[in-house]
This record gives sequence, structure tokens and C-alpha cells, in this order.
Amino acid sequence: MNNETKPALGVGMIGYAFMGAAHSQAWRTAGRVYYLPLRPAMVTVCGRNRAAVEAAAGRQGWSSFETDWKHVVGRDDVDLVDICAPGDLHAEIAIAALEAGKHVLCEKPLGNTVAEAEAMVAAANAAARHGVRSMVGFNYRRVPALALARSIVSSGKLGVIRHVRAVYLQDWIVDPAFPLVWRLQRERAGSGALGDIGAHIIDLAQFILGDLLVGVSALSETFVKERPLPEESSGLSAIGGSTRGAVTVDDAVLFIGRFANGALGSFEATRFASGRKNAMRIEINGSEGSLAFDFESMNELSFYDHTENPELGGFRRILVTEPGHPYLSAWWPPGHLLGYEHSFTHEIRDLVEAIGLGQDPSPSFADGLQVQHVLAAVEKSAGAGSGWQPIPAPAL
Amino acid sequence: MNNETKPALGVGMIGYAFMGAAHSQAWRTAGRVYYLPLRPAMVTVCGRNRAAVEAAAGRQGWSSFETDWKHVVGRDDVDLVDICAPGDLHAEIAIAALEAGKHVLCEKPLGNTVAEAEAMVAAANAAARHGVRSMVGFNYRRVPALALARSIVSSGKLGVIRHVRAVYLQDWIVDPAFPLVWRLQRERAGSGALGDIGAHIIDLAQFILGDLLVGVSALSETFVKERPLPEESSGLSAIGGSTRGAVTVDDAVLFIGRFANGALGSFEATRFASGRKNAMRIEINGSEGSLAFDFESMNELSFYDHTENPELGGFRRILVTEPGHPYLSAWWPPGHLLGYEHSFTHEIRDLVEAIGLGQDPSPSFADGLQVQHVLAAVEKSAGAGSGWQPIPAPAL
Amino acid sequence: MNNETKPALGVGMIGYAFMGAAHSQAWRTAGRVYYLPLRPAMVTVCGRNRAAVEAAAGRQGWSSFETDWKHVVGRDDVDLVDICAPGDLHAEIAIAALEAGKHVLCEKPLGNTVAEAEAMVAAANAAARHGVRSMVGFNYRRVPALALARSIVSSGKLGVIRHVRAVYLQDWIVDPAFPLVWRLQRERAGSGALGDIGAHIIDLAQFILGDLLVGVSALSETFVKERPLPEESSGLSAIGGSTRGAVTVDDAVLFIGRFANGALGSFEATRFASGRKNAMRIEINGSEGSLAFDFESMNELSFYDHTENPELGGFRRILVTEPGHPYLSAWWPPGHLLGYEHSFTHEIRDLVEAIGLGQDPSPSFADGLQVQHVLAAVEKSAGAGSGWQPIPAPAL
Amino acid sequence: MNNETKPALGVGMIGYAFMGAAHSQAWRTAGRVYYLPLRPAMVTVCGRNRAAVEAAAGRQGWSSFETDWKHVVGRDDVDLVDICAPGDLHAEIAIAALEAGKHVLCEKPLGNTVAEAEAMVAAANAAARHGVRSMVGFNYRRVPALALARSIVSSGKLGVIRHVRAVYLQDWIVDPAFPLVWRLQRERAGSGALGDIGAHIIDLAQFILGDLLVGVSALSETFVKERPLPEESSGLSAIGGSTRGAVTVDDAVLFIGRFANGALGSFEATRFASGRKNAMRIEINGSEGSLAFDFESMNELSFYDHTENPELGGFRRILVTEPGHPYLSAWWPPGHLLGYEHSFTHEIRDLVEAIGLGQDPSPSFADGLQVQHVLAAVEKSAGAGSGWQPIPAPAL
Repeated sequence: MNNETKPALGVGMIGYAFMGAAHSQAWRTAGRVYYLPLRPAMVTVCGRNRAAVEAAAGRQGWSSFETDWKHVVGRDDVDLVDICAPGDLHAEIAIAALEAGKHVLCEKPLGNTVAEAEAMVAAANAAARHGVRSMVGFNYRRVPALALARSIVSSGKLGVIRHVRAVYLQDWIVDPAFPLVWRLQRERAGSGALGDIGAHIIDLAQFILGDLLVGVSALSETFVKERPLPEESSGLSAIGGSTRGAVTVDDAVLFIGRFANGALGSFEATRFASGRKNAMRIEINGSEGSLAFDFESMNELSFYDHTENPELGGFRRILVTEPGHPYLSAWWPPGHLLGYEHSFTHEIRDLVEAIGLGQDPSPSFADGLQVQHVLAAVEKSAGAGSGWQPIPAPAL
Repeated sequence: MNNETKPALGVGMIGYAFMGAAHSQAWRTAGRVYYLPLRPAMVTVCGRNRAAVEAAAGRQGWSSFETDWKHVVGRDDVDLVDICAPGDLHAEIAIAALEAGKHVLCEKPLGNTVAEAEAMVAAANAAARHGVRSMVGFNYRRVPALALARSIVSSGKLGVIRHVRAVYLQDWIVDPAFPLVWRLQRERAGSGALGDIGAHIIDLAQFILGDLLVGVSALSETFVKERPLPEESSGLSAIGGSTRGAVTVDDAVLFIGRFANGALGSFEATRFASGRKNAMRIEINGSEGSLAFDFESMNELSFYDHTENPELGGFRRILVTEPGHPYLSAWWPPGHLLGYEHSFTHEIRDLVEAIGLGQDPSPSFADGLQVQHVLAAVEKSAGAGSGWQPIPAPAL
Repeated sequence: MNNETKPALGVGMIGYAFMGAAHSQAWRTAGRVYYLPLRPAMVTVCGRNRAAVEAAAGRQGWSSFETDWKHVVGRDDVDLVDICAPGDLHAEIAIAALEAGKHVLCEKPLGNTVAEAEAMVAAANAAARHGVRSMVGFNYRRVPALALARSIVSSGKLGVIRHVRAVYLQDWIVDPAFPLVWRLQRERAGSGALGDIGAHIIDLAQFILGDLLVGVSALSETFVKERPLPEESSGLSAIGGSTRGAVTVDDAVLFIGRFANGALGSFEATRFASGRKNAMRIEINGSEGSLAFDFESMNELSFYDHTENPELGGFRRILVTEPGHPYLSAWWPPGHLLGYEHSFTHEIRDLVEAIGLGQDPSPSFADGLQVQHVLAAVEKSAGAGSGWQPIPAPAL
Repeated sequence: MNNETKPALGVGMIGYAFMGAAHSQAWRTAGRVYYLPLRPAMVTVCGRNRAAVEAAAGRQGWSSFETDWKHVVGRDDVDLVDICAPGDLHAEIAIAALEAGKHVLCEKPLGNTVAEAEAMVAAANAAARHGVRSMVGFNYRRVPALALARSIVSSGKLGVIRHVRAVYLQDWIVDPAFPLVWRLQRERAGSGALGDIGAHIIDLAQFILGDLLVGVSALSETFVKERPLPEESSGLSAIGGSTRGAVTVDDAVLFIGRFANGALGSFEATRFASGRKNAMRIEINGSEGSLAFDFESMNELSFYDHTENPELGGFRRILVTEPGHPYLSAWWPPGHLLGYEHSFTHEIRDLVEAIGLGQDPSPSFADGLQVQHVLAAVEKSAGAGSGWQPIPAPAL
């Protein structure tokens, strides 16, 4: 079927900064690399700053632009709303879009609170009855090495899982002069390192294990209590002015926890690990083998097979670029690496495929809600002397 | 300037397999990420198999397709011809395109012989007088870590260069049952590992050093002398049939050489290094520092500063994802990796920028000819008992 | 001063298995590599199995053997008692030796309980008034890369310390058929992974930071509850029989904590990390730089300098084999690695030097007691729903 | 058998600097770790500087000292002469010792010329008829990871060997002010990087492959032509004075060659690789697998199994510390690393075991001669325009 003659899937995207640019690249690319059942049409992009959103639309390849997200939700030529706005807008936009019968892709974390996430799940469930699909954007599930990790664990090759240890280390706000951008404001971002990057490792650990956290004990800290208010900002970069404001989110959070099937987990998310730019690392130890991954070498997965002859055994560095690896068949020959943005291209592929096939994509809003419960338990424990906080099991 | 209102640069691409797919991704992307002076228009793609090229056009985003490259060269709406065809077609197409006043981007190696490359340089020089631009596609120069390597060397930080050691290791034909695809046929490919991957490390070493090889001594080998003829093939993969043919190119080539400024070089290109999928590695040692790079970790450059306190010194792993690194300002925040295809996107950016500014892009066809001289000297030495073969200095 | 004419330091060692062999190698070597003020004389080694200890004496180079540790403590030709016996014997032997006026080197952890450790500190303090010295064997402080780490932190190069994350991962009891050796019995070993390997990372983190933990929250687990009783064992290897017994120590322990100066710490010690043989890893992040170490690459220290030009910055792999590095001047040229046993040789050097100079060696029994308090707090938290447990500040 | 009651093997060592210190450590240790059939007695050490050799004897544990090597050879209590002197003395001492009925361990390279090596082989052969043993000290064969490499290759696991690439990179004379020590003087050392470190990688490649080089093509260079004459020196360190002399050896040498069974080899030895302290690296590619080793991580061997499922395949990092690995059963538990000096301890073990069992140790003087032929061919090729130089097959 020729790309041009496929049914179109009209996309409206809210937000055009870092996440918006990444999603745009994915929307432009997915149908050029994979055979999709529908042809994504980049109908409109939305932002509050008219000049900026107009420029972004032209550069990123959107056919039009809007300055009010309600217009996006209301357009007939928009079939899917892609929410890349800050967390405080997720619930309102997603619920309105779902009610308008639009499929929704929503960036993570799903909401800023459990209550918001619950409302979003209710809206998603209601919409699903009419064939409207929703997905939360835990894009790291679509990094081929991590999709391979899940498949190795679910195949049973690691035996009984004993340990997960996951860290997400960044250093972009080590400098106390770095300004108070929206990601450092509780009312916009919901939380700090916890929701921004901690949410990724929580989701990933649970995704790879096929298991859920049942309780946690946590610590968190805001090392730099006040920062200059930003005078201008775009994406993650910004310039600070002379007035200062209080940092209202965590700079770092650590927690330990238990999974339903008995594994122990250790988690840490911080923006204060000098020299670690985007070190999302996860290691899993089972009774028959182990896996290790570092996002700074994202095309590799380390695998140890404990059942092998110990004299020839060792962690093997699988270069996850073989045609048989997840998502790889459409890309380059072995040894030719993929990058960060490909996780979004793969996400869009899976989403469009699910919509075309009339299936619910994964991770669902319910999955996003479960992560929100973990985030809430972590915050509660950290705020209450690290006491144990149970995490409710999701309704079936 | 809005993307849509910029002057268009009509592009016609010959070939649509591995290289064609990579170039298509770059043509689609460059203007969406970088501010280009011209707007690339993907006018037409050309291949001999009508059904296949039609499908490729639809998927890769080309507005039309052709089955005869002469039609591409002859179209008024084509301003630039991008040659991704096998090496035996390079000279004929490039010369015709240049004579027709089309800018040319030609994949490496420039031609299959020095004579072909010389004719291409003559055509490029003649065309340049009329503002027609030409470039040879040594895309690895546009890997950010390698562009950074050049800038570190040219800044003098390594002092006097003593050593270069470069290998390009692959393993895709280790299995003797792998069929005799065009890359294993001298009349199509010109040479084997030498021209395909050896050409890359020759160009890179000379590019990073800003210096040229003056002579070499070489060995080469064809380990598997006969292979099944392919029944079908696409890109680098293929299925062999029951009749067999002679492999007429090298499986592996090794050479040692001297650079004009006194450095010693060691080079190896092979398709028989089991487990090395695309290990293009280069190390440079100077009197004041060293650099090391491995394409399997292409977002990293290792740098040793010999002038530092030795007790705190060591090879540092520069994650080449900072906004100040070459090509990076338009991409993602630090620590979010780029992939193989980005080297082509950067190449297209530089090419379109040069055309827009009325400048000659680099590497030129003359640079391609100089590499061809090195390839010829390597072949001559390997065929004549490894005796020393001088390499002519390029005409100024 | 000739080695043979120096005053002798008569050494009696209790225990001759894994630790005993390592200490023996150190006692034989320290005075041959370093200039020591006293000449260690390997007077006697003690064990309960007469045939085995006799064989060990002959092989390890001890001049005689004993089967009752009280005889060692009572010998006039013994000036120093080196305690390599299981933890349940530490207190009794150490106190007797100190009271007999013998210097004492005691393996870690100092005792099996805080109470034992307190009694040992009291004995050490009383003996110190008579010039009798005592030291606890946290040998990893003498790994050159870790000594360098401390010196970098104490120089201020990392700025304000924000994070420590330390793991000690082993896999020697992953197999449920591995027998119930003494290290898996609470009454002999005091605890499991916690005291055996967790104690090392607690001590190291505090040593490198020059700071102390003030509180922790912990989880622990015994994954395999019963194991075959051992029929024979030596060192860490053993063969199990058909009767089974309960494992009474932890297989794994995780905890998070705070340091007095505000850093957050994450710790994990486990014997269930398949494929990790002796992965003692520690990373420290400060406002101006970071360090990372992995004992499986024990001659290397990774250092990131956050104050550098970010475009040339990166974690540098310091090969800690330069003559100016701690302990290195007496060994081999740069790039020639040291091994595990050298940490003991360095420990003996520092101990003998301190004795010769009439100084108290470090780490002291008081340091060992402080670690015991941390171990106790971890156990208490893990046993009480991960609640926060404060750690008493040491008496000054 | 008790160590003390075993028959003694009286050892006299010539030279006490870097190599002498390493050998001393091995002589002191081998019998304490391994069960040897004979008890090494460190009878005497010899050097020309009386005060220095006397001090070395005391520190290194030799019972006496000599200042004339002929006295060592003449002593009745010396059963074995261990030659750690500069290369120009090897032949004379070794021949005299063998003629006096002493076993000989001679450091590499065997001699400074093929003629010397031939004379030494003749003497060794004559002595062997009387049960006198000789061995050349290619100690790197006894690095456990490299012994494992040989065993993997000889088991056939790599299939047909296609490639060997070996480099030995150091940087200790990058600074032109570093003085003209004996290792930079042809009349003392025979050659520069070639014989000192190139000899190691030649021997290792041949040892691991179980195959011999049949011809080479080479380049060499002396980057710094003149250096200050040394005022004092010890081991590899020295201080230069104000008068200067010509450097008469190579600073760096590169060569490519062929093995008898068809593999291609690439070799490089240099003292000008800034930042590479002792980077002895070797990679071997076969039709069914590959191996890679780096001496800066000497306890690891990377192994790729090409016959595995490619989706789970990858270079595995074998930590060569398992009890079943070569030489490891006598050392520490898995994951506890060995160092450089252990290669000598293992060498002494194998030598003493062979002597005790009445067998010829390996590598023999004939093996040393064959390496000398390779060195000579490399020098000849480098001196004659890199022309191909065949290497004679050893007499059977």
C-alpha cells in the first residue's frame, strides 16, 4: 500500500520545546521507516507564544499552528492529540481530548498527582469503549536494548529475579546559578528529579521485570534551596535574572523497595551527579543470569548467563543492532547505532500500529497511574522519616 | 525565513538501498533540525527495478521515481544529483550530472579507479567555474566526535603527531555461504574491504591529522575464494543459490605508511573480524596528547592530555553531546545520543549550506581522488610483495 | 639499615584460611618492597586442626604453629597478634592479646555486636596508654585507587559532596545447593552480606568522604532459607551434605542514609548478583567533580572535573600506577598492575611503620566500633519496617 | 612434603633492577603459593655496583651478593642462574652457566642478535643432554588470561584464524628530555621498542595461535634522535645531564605479516603513545570466534562466540579469576585480581616444576631464537624500504 494512499491519522501536538522536537522527529520518520497502517499527518502544533510556535511549526514540519490547545482538541482534522506540555496541563488536555473522541499520547509522568491520574484513567476507560486509544509516553521502553531486556527476562533466562538497581543521574542543575525553570517548580512539574527521571526508572524496572513495586522507603533532598528566576528559557537551557525564588521540588531522591514477586529494588534519581549527563542505568540479577544497561551506551545490553561454563562465562556486551532485535529490522546493518530520538520513532510506530489494528497501545493510562502511586508513596515516605509506604495493587 | 518560502533545492537520488535509505533520512531531516539557506525538495529517486524503486519512493518520501538515471540528470526540477549507486556507475553519472549543471553528491569511494576519479575531478573543476558544486560522501567526517577530533588536533593540543592506528572491522561475510553480492565483485565495487571501509579510515586519518599519506606497504587476502551467486539481495543482506562464482575482491587488507609530517600509520580493513560489527576505530598519539575513537561507541571521544599532572591524568571519555560540540546545538540535551544516520544529516546540512552560500563543500572530488591514489598504492603494494609504494602529492 | 639487622617484630597469626593466606603473603612481602622500621618475623600461626595448620605454616612461611590461640598470646616472641579467625572469636582474642601487651591487627568487622566492639575499644584504649597499638583490617583503604580517592576528596577537588552510592556485589551463594558455611551462620559471622562486605563499603564511603553516616533506612532479605550443612570446607569453597540447616544471616541488604555534612548515600551488599564476582563499586558526586571506582578494575579511578571546559571534559580513567600515587613508589613502572593481595601488603606496611614510629595506626578499633554502630542501625531498621535509625556520633 | 625438607634449588640472579625486583618477588612467592617439587633457595644476587647490590640483596631477600657474574656461575650452591642483565650480557652469561651445568632462566629477548641466540641454543642443546634446563622469560605467557587465550584457540573454538592484531604501547620517552638510558643504546639493548616490547607481542601472538610468522614488511622510526646522557638511573627512571648522545635504537616499529597457516598479522610497538602506559593489546579473529586482551585490564579476556544466537551474542568479558582458570587455583576467590608480578611467580612455578620433573620448560631457547629471527626480519625490512622479509622455519 502506497504511503500517500493510506488513511491519514491527523495529529495535533501541544508543546514544541524539547519533547515537542523529539516527537516531531518521530512523527516525520516513523512512517518512512516502518510500514504503518495509517499515514500520520502533522496537522497542527500548539503553543502560547505565537511567534515561537509559528517558527516551530515551519521548522518541525507541522502544517499549521494554534495558540490555544482547545482549538487543537476541537479540530475535525485532528484524530490524535500528542501532549508534550508541562505536567500541570496533562490532565485537563487529555480528558478534553478523550471526551472529544481523539486518541491521546501523553508524556510522562501521566499527571502531577494521583487524583489527576485517576481522572485521566477514568476518561481513558470511558473513551476506550468508543475505540479511542490512549498511551503514556514512557519512551525508554522502546529503546531496543531495553525491549530486549524485557524479552530476556520474560523468557525466563534470568530465573528468579533477586535484585533491581536503577539510577538516573544527571547534572544539569549542579550550578546554583542555574535558574528556576518550570521543571524546578512544583506547581508546574509536580515534582523534581522524582517525576521527571525517577518515573522513567520506576516504569522501566516494572516493565522489564513484568512485576510491580509493593512498597518503598525513601529519602529526598533539595540541595539548592533558592535559584534566580529565569529571564528566558527554552528546553532545558535558560538564563537567570537577579531576583530569586524558592526551589519547590526535589533535587534528588533515593528509595529502596520490594516487588510483588520478592525482588529487592534500589532506585536513585538526581540532577546533582556531576559528569553524569543522562546516565539511566539499570541492572537486574536473577538466579540464572543478569542484565545491565547504561543509557550513555544505549545500543548495548550486558547479559550474563549464570548457567554457562564459569570458565568461559562473563558479561557479554550485546550490540543491539541485529535485524532480529526489537525495532531493528527497519534500520541499518549491524553495528550502525541508533540514537535517543529513535525511542520516540518506535513509540509512534507502536502507537499507530495499535490504532490501525484497533488495539489498545501500551503503556496505558492505567500503567501511568500505577507509576503515579509509586511516586506518591516515595514522596510520602521521604516526607515521613523514610517510613515504609505500601503501594496499592492496580485494580484488575 | 519560513522553511516553505525558501528557495527549493531539487534533489534527484540514484540508488535507494542501504545508502539510499540513509541519504533519504538525511534529506528529510536536515532542514527540520538546522536552519538551511535552501529548502531540499525530494524530487525523484532512481533505480532499475521499477516496482522496487516505486515502493522506495513512496516509503522514503520522494515525489516521483525514475528507472533511468539519465532522466534524473535531464530533469529541470533537479538541481542536485545524489549518487548512491555502486561504484562502477559513479564516474559516468557524476560527469553527466556536472556537465548538465547539476550539483553532485557522490558516495565514496569516488570512483573504481584513479583514472575514473581523475575524470571526475576534471568535470568537477570545469563545473565549478559555473558555480556547480561537488562533494564526495565521506560521511564519517560529520560524526560529531570525529569532527571534534579534527578540531582538537588542529588546535595543536596533541603536539607533534607520532602515530595513527586505524582499523575498520566487520564480520558480515565470515560465513563462506554468504553469497557473492555486488560488493564482492571487482567490476561493480572496484575493490572489497579496501574501497568500502578502508577508504573511510584513510580519509578520516588524513582529515583528522590535516596531513596526507606519502607512501605505504600493504598485504591483502581473499580468505574465501568462491561463494554462491546471490538469488536475491537488498542492502547488505542476500540469499545464495547453488551456482558459485569467484570472489574478485579483497576480504581484508592491512597496510602501514608514513604521513608527510612524519607520523607513522597502521591501517586494517576487514570483513572477517568475528564479532566486530562495525568497529571503525582510530587512535592518534601526539607528543602532548592522544585521542581514541570507536564507532561502536560513536558518541564518545577519548582524550588524553599529556601536559597534565600525571597523577590525575588519564584518558577521559568525552561524551560528545554538549551544545558546543560540532553539529550538536540543534539536537538534544547533553547525554542524549545521536546515531549513525546523523552523520548523513550533518553532511547534507554542510552541503546545502555551502551551496546556499556559493562555496565549495568539503571533501571535494579532489580529496576523493587523493584517497583513490592511496587505494591504488595499497593495491599495488599488496600485489607486489608488500614493496613500498609512494603516493603522489595532490596538485595544488 | 639492613633488613636482617633491624629490630624484629614477632608476629603470631590466628587463622590460616583465605584471610590468613592473604595476610601471610603481606607479612612475607611488605619488608621486601618497602623500607620498614622493624623486620616482621613470622613466628607462629594458629588453627584448631593440627595437620592443617602445620601444613599451612610450612607453606605460608611461619616458623612454628599452635593449635590454641591462648598459646600465641602467651608467647614472648610474639609482639603482634594478627586475628584472621571468624568474627565470634575477635573480641576474646583481641582483648586477651591487648591485655598481654601485644599489638593487634584484627580483621573486620571488628566484632559481632556493638557490645563486643565496645569492649574491644576499651581494651585498645587501655593498652594504648602503654604504647600497645591496635588496628582493624579494612584493607580496601589501602587499595591505591581508593587511597587516591580519599586524597582527591580531602583536597576539596570535588567541592561539596552530594552523593555516595556504593555496592558490593558477589554471587558465590546463588546456587541453593551451596552449603551452610560459617559465613552463613549468625553465631559465627554475626551477620551475612552486611558484615562481610557491607562493612567494607560503609568504612570506605566514610573514609573517602571524611564524614560519617548519621542515620539509615534499610531492607534485607534471606532469599534461600535453608542450605545443606557442609561436609568439608576451606576458605570460601565447600561441599554440602544431605542434612540441611537454617540460614541465619542476610543474603542481601540495601540501605539509604545521610551523612553528617549533608550527602545522601545509597548502599547495597549482596551475595546474589549473578556474574558479579567481587564488584565493590563506589561513586561520589560533588558540586565540582565526581569519582567512580570498581574493584573488578582495581587499578583504575575515574575522575570527572566539573570545573573544566565542558567540551573537553569527561570521566578520565586514571591508571593508578604512577610513582606519585599512594603506595606505588615501591612497585613497578606505570601500567604494571597490582592485585588484591597488595592491599594487605600496604596495610602491613602502614601498621609496621606506625608501630615503629610509636604512632597509632588507622583505622583504629574506635573506627571499627563506629562501623559496628552503622551495621547495628541497618539491622534494626531492616527488622523494623525500614524505619529511620539514627547512628550515634562517636565519642571524641 | 614440608617445604623446608624439600630438596633445595639454589638460585643466583644477575641484575637487581626492575626485572630483578620482579624475579625476586616471584622466587620468594612461588613456593609459598604453589606446591613445588623443589624449594627455591635465594642464594645470591649479582651486580656491578657493590653498595647497590648489597642493599638490593638485603631488601629482596637474597642470602648473599656478588659483583662479578662469573662468581655466581662458579658457585657450588647455585643450581640455576637467572639472567636479568641487559641484553648484551645474555649470551656470554647463559653459555657460561649452561657449560657449568647450571639451569638457566634468561630474560627476553634471548640475545641481541640472531648469531648470539644461535650460540645460546647450541649451548642449551648441549647442556640438555646432561639434564640441564633452559628457559627464556616471556613471562606474559603466564598471565592467566593469556594462557586461557591459548587454550581457547588450541581447543578450536575460534575455528580458522584469520587475523591477529597486536600492539604494545608505552609513553615513557615521549619527553625529549628523558635521558639516554641503556634501553636506548643499541650496543646494550640490541634494539629499542622492537626487542623490548615488540618481542613480547611476537612471542604471544605465536604462542596463542600455535603458529609462526613466515614473513613481514616493516617500518620503524626514531622520533627523537638525540637525548641527554643520564647522570643517574635506576630501573626505567633516570635523570639526564647536559651532554647529549645519539639514540641508536628505534622509538617505534610497525609491521604486517603472514602466519604459516594463513592468518594475517598486524604489529606495533612504540614508546611514543602518550597516555598508554603499558597497553599490550592483542585481538584474534577466527572463523568461529574472537578474543581480545588488554594488559591494562590484565585479569580480563574478551571472548566472542560466533556460533551463538546472534541476538544474544556479544563479546563477553571473562574475569579470569575462577579456580579453573590457568594458575588460579592457588590464589584468591573469584573477582580478587592478580597483578603484573604474578606472571613471574607463575613462570617460576612452571620452571621449577619442569626441573623437578626432569622436563624441558617452555618457552625454550629455540623459541627465543625463532623470535630473534622475526626481530631480525623486521629490522631488515624496515631498513630496506619495507620490502618483504621471509622468516626461516625453525629446524625440527
